Amino acid sequence: MSEKLIGACIFGQSGGPTSVINASAYGAIRAALDAEEITKVYGAAHGIKGVLDDKLYVMDEEDPEELRLLLNTPSSELGSCRYKIADPDVDDTDYKRILEIFKKYNVRYFFYNGGNDSMDTCNKISKYMQKVGYECRVNGVPKTIDNDLFGTDHCPGFASAAKYIATSCMEINKDARVYDTGMVTIIEIMGRHAGWLAGSAALATEFGSGPDLIYLPETDFVMDDFLADVKRVYDETGKVLVAVSEGIHYADGSFVSEAKTSATDGFGHAQLGGLATMLAEVVKNHMGCKVRGVELSLLQRCGAHLASATDIQEAQAAGAQAVKAALEGITDKMVAFERSYDENGNYVCGMKLIPLSDVANYEKKVPLEWINETKNGVKKEFIDYVLPLIQGEPEIPRECSLPRYARLKKVLAK
Amino acid sequence: MSEKLIGACIFGQSGGPTSVINASAYGAIRAALDAEEITKVYGAAHGIKGVLDDKLYVMDEEDPEELRLLLNTPSSELGSCRYKIADPDVDDTDYKRILEIFKKYNVRYFFYNGGNDSMDTCNKISKYMQKVGYECRVNGVPKTIDNDLFGTDHCPGFASAAKYIATSCMEINKDARVYDTGMVTIIEIMGRHAGWLAGSAALATEFGSGPDLIYLPETDFVMDDFLADVKRVYDETGKVLVAVSEGIHYADGSFVSEAKTSATDGFGHAQLGGLATMLAEVVKNHMGCKVRGVELSLLQRCGAHLASATDIQEAQAAGAQAVKAALEGITDKMVAFERSYDENGNYVCGMKLIPLSDVANYEKKVPLEWINETKNGVKKEFIDYVLPLIQGEPEIPRECSLPRYARLKKVLAK
Repeated sequence: MSEKLIGACIFGQSGGPTSVINASAYGAIRAALDAEEITKVYGAAHGIKGVLDDKLYVMDEEDPEELRLLLNTPSSELGSCRYKIADPDVDDTDYKRILEIFKKYNVRYFFYNGGNDSMDTCNKISKYMQKVGYECRVNGVPKTIDNDLFGTDHCPGFASAAKYIATSCMEINKDARVYDTGMVTIIEIMGRHAGWLAGSAALATEFGSGPDLIYLPETDFVMDDFLADVKRVYDETGKVLVAVSEGIHYADGSFVSEAKTSATDGFGHAQLGGLATMLAEVVKNHMGCKVRGVELSLLQRCGAHLASATDIQEAQAAGAQAVKAALEGITDKMVAFERSYDENGNYVCGMKLIPLSDVANYEKKVPLEWINETKNGVKKEFIDYVLPLIQGEPEIPRECSLPRYARLKKVLAK
Repeated sequence: MSEKLIGACIFGQSGGPTSVINASAYGAIRAALDAEEITKVYGAAHGIKGVLDDKLYVMDEEDPEELRLLLNTPSSELGSCRYKIADPDVDDTDYKRILEIFKKYNVRYFFYNGGNDSMDTCNKISKYMQKVGYECRVNGVPKTIDNDLFGTDHCPGFASAAKYIATSCMEINKDARVYDTGMVTIIEIMGRHAGWLAGSAALATEFGSGPDLIYLPETDFVMDDFLADVKRVYDETGKVLVAVSEGIHYADGSFVSEAKTSATDGFGHAQLGGLATMLAEVVKNHMGCKVRGVELSLLQRCGAHLASATDIQEAQAAGAQAVKAALEGITDKMVAFERSYDENGNYVCGMKLIPLSDVANYEKKVPLEWINETKNGVKKEFIDYVLPLIQGEPEIPRECSLPRYARLKKVLAK
């Protein structure tokens, strides 16, 4: 263990919200509040922008019970940003400003919670502080529903989104088969470049009933194959439920969602609206049957009422681990998960630390060997991977049968 | 009590599915299975179409534990239909066929679960059987997420949809406010002619945070007023969350969702896609800000994981009551709810029976005095009305942390 480093810490949230990013915040903030080396705990308002704008919330001022409600509060309670920080060799304005703020508040610990881009930001700040010789321990906490971060078995936020998707697909499937008339229903799921979320719809089929066909962005989408798949299932059962990733693309790399001209309204007009609606129209024009497009939209990433208790617990642990490691002198790392199974075959989630520079800007996709031969579903390996992650129902704090979220005071540092 | 009537019963589900229509089915089927006068219990496949097609499932063949899972299984497990039965004075073909099937299976009890149109069907069948002198007790069980049935304080299915909507609006609201950039988010909610569901979004605002503005179909929609409302809130806070009923309409009665020309894409092309997307585009063109449209779609009526325990219990009780009343000799009625409050001010739901002919084809709307003066929200009376109905979380049977729905054998009667 290295010598004790006395000073304040900043915790920031970045990128798209998830159902459990606040659980990581709670894990880190609670650990920091409990650490005697850490003199003050700040939450950055809207991630790194809060540092640049000198907008820091004093977490020491919050009521501990209210803070604890962060465990079940979706979205980014401190506020988030999608701020692309410059290359410091090209423009170091932001870095000088960050250093100025760090010095102003004697910040010696910096924790950043986010996905690929956020880890890149975290990495650049860490390297800059090293370069200018300002002692500050910098660790990243992973987060993304997309599950595409390198070096970690999975990412906090993914499992709760997967559980929301699987449950919703089960429910929609029940609804979509209720009449004795033919029907094709298409569900659009998030995940621009990786198919972890769309693939999770297969859990519904595995454990009850769900999509008949699933298309991931890991393989090229072929409209004729898709239409043939849909027609085959329709001819067999009269009902088809399809799950598609928003990121499906043709062989030339163009997104299906952007290829408006392939789904004109019959008058040559381009169609607006989402991918599900567009594909539903294509099917209707092709087969003349009833169709419906459903976009799961924002709820898949903020539907905390369907969160996985495993995900919440792991997200909290990851936040706490980033702080614990920093207190032990470890810096410049991201917390990552390592999966193993105990002697009874039960899933065990271990944690390790990997260099921030290894993580930044690399995307982890669904292995091609986990996708079926006909490119319209996933194999058992995929189910086995996701299933342990979605286990457990959290106790949701409620008020009049509606969720009771954290109400922070958000006292600004002066 | 009238003399005992010995014979079989048929239970049928009709109209759009809800999260709790199967709870009514369970209530009725269980009561019928337990009644010694009832010799056989049939479930009609796809409502009255199952009777016409001689497709009846033998409920006596089902495993009691599996049947019990209907309490938490969304959508219409027996299958539903939207079959408009003819006026018997004009064309009595269907009625003759129904009588034939009733005679074939010695059906002396007929229970039909649905909304306005279904009660009309139920009423016509009841009157026909009386006219031809075939003794059969016919009672209706109310059901509709739209909550627009006449003569009952509220309808089974409404409260669970309202709870889904309120919870989802809370979650979306968290998500929609996460960045420090301006944003207008528009949520589209079901309810073509009555605003009970859209109004329920106000529960989110009342118990945390939710929509700033809510538009119901009970009043005429004025686009200029809407845009002024949105701009006012946006100028104050930079974030606007709007809930709209799918049924909002202009003063001339035309649906806003169908007035495509008012939201062209700038090239004079009509826009397809839903109302939320369309209104979001109008706001974007008007204010130049970031917008997002979210359609709650099917999930609001089949999201059983967020059902109200009160709703499930009442739906089950309504089904059982229809059977109980029939066994007592009562026929030609619909079960209705009557609200009262006990000495401690707690909500009590009583049941009564009202003539089927009173219910059919009349729509109950949100009282205008429960809508605010500026026509962009609801008053406390509305909240007080809905709140008791959404109380309680059901114990959801699960398998591997995913819902475990009823898997019926559906043995066809020969």
